[in-house]
Amino acid sequence: MEVVLVSPRNPLNIGAAARAMANFGFARLKVVAPFEPHWREARSAVGAPELLQTAAETASLAEAVADCTLVAGTGTLTYRKPEQPVVSLSGLTPLVERELKRGGRVALVFGPEKHGLTREDLSYCHVLVEIPTDPKQPSMNLGQAVAVCLYELSSRVSKLSSPASDEAASAPSGDLDLLAKVIEDTMQLAGYSPRTMQAANRHDLRLLLRRLAPGKRDARRILGLFRRILWRLEHGMGGTTKEKPVEPEGKSR
Amino acid sequence: MEVVLVSPRNPLNIGAAARAMANFGFARLKVVAPFEPHWREARSAVGAPELLQTAAETASLAEAVADCTLVAGTGTLTYRKPEQPVVSLSGLTPLVERELKRGGRVALVFGPEKHGLTREDLSYCHVLVEIPTDPKQPSMNLGQAVAVCLYELSSRVSKLSSPASDEAASAPSGDLDLLAKVIEDTMQLAGYSPRTMQAANRHDLRLLLRRLAPGKRDARRILGLFRRILWRLEHGMGGTTKEKPVEPEGKSR
Repeated sequence: MEVVLVSPRNPLNIGAAARAMANFGFARLKVVAPFEPHWREARSAVGAPELLQTAAETASLAEAVADCTLVAGTGTLTYRKPEQPVVSLSGLTPLVERELKRGGRVALVFGPEKHGLTREDLSYCHVLVEIPTDPKQPSMNLGQAVAVCLYELSSRVSKLSSPASDEAASAPSGDLDLLAKVIEDTMQLAGYSPRTMQAANRHDLRLLLRRLAPGKRDARRILGLFRRILWRLEHGMGGTTKEKPVEPEGKSR
Repeated sequence: MEVVLVSPRNPLNIGAAARAMANFGFARLKVVAPFEPHWREARSAVGAPELLQTAAETASLAEAVADCTLVAGTGTLTYRKPEQPVVSLSGLTPLVERELKRGGRVALVFGPEKHGLTREDLSYCHVLVEIPTDPKQPSMNLGQAVAVCLYELSSRVSKLSSPASDEAASAPSGDLDLLAKVIEDTMQLAGYSPRTMQAANRHDLRLLLRRLAPGKRDARRILGLFRRILWRLEHGMGGTTKEKPVEPEGKSR
């Protein structure tokens, strides 16, 4: 189980998140494009300085969640119409439990202080988790939101560490991104996606793949299929003699 | 439902507590003997400045919870052997629900940042609530602890406002303090409590009354009884003619 903070502005909030992680027994923190370079020295990480030292820093959310099979973004619905399934915080528990039981890896993603996760950020998420706050004052402090989510998960999910990853597990986010890239190339080569629609189609494709949530093996199969289609589009329908050999399944990525 | 902060040192934490209260729909804050006089200006109370303005400030915890019928102190068991029943945070929910249904008034009490509630503070509490944190890092930030507790209560307790107070309700904390005072006077006059034991006996008596948790009416009956005993002790056993008239029940305090 990973905690991912996207573009946090105030290092005190990063430290507070780390402290809450230590309080509830979580150890893996990832910080995406932080505003302040010296965030690892945040003094608010009481009892958790080594958690800040060992945290990973990445440039993008895609990179941070690349190895995760269930990505849950947090936020409020007040200002947006979500494009993915919404669960309440207590409703997240069974999803996390199932994913971990299958050997998957879960990321809980928090947006920046002012405005939360963007629509682009959320397109990397399988679900949007809503903390049930008062509609009159829905916006939580970042450190407090992390504490509330981790309290809920640690007190209701029986086992928060994953068993060894197996083939029945969901495809990690990075595999979906790779798949999306090949499908996008295919769409362009097939003339399906006009230039003006490319950004919108990329966004929709990302969401579609997370709705489908293919298993690891299925994602690899689909990838093999699209690579084949792509090769065919590039080499024309003519020469059956110049046939590209079908790659054995296990090596297709 | 009241939130009581005892001797908070950092106004930012008071503001954070107020923000969490607004997030989860709580409105009544009491601050006991704060360290910093200008705490009402805390900028961390995002979206909740009026909550800080209308908060009550008292000199003692006894005063802050005088009108409450269930006082729940928060803390960790790591460094203490508690003298009152301990419930986990999720176990607090049914107690709060029952108390509010009976027309009672509940206070959730948080200690100062460094060391939490003292043994003296806890003697005013009916229960000690434990947030299930990691034994390796049990100590939470004050604002985060408030957020976690209010999240749990607001999401699991169906109705957080009290109906009109009725006679079946528990005696409020102030009634128990009044009762304790009369019993203590009686103990002294009866030669039961030697001078060296007075502080310890006072402490134990406070805990005993909270364990008994008498209803409003019963507390009044017991008070009437001890007042009568006290009067008898003061006036000697002799004169049956100088009998003090029994006070009618409804006026005995």
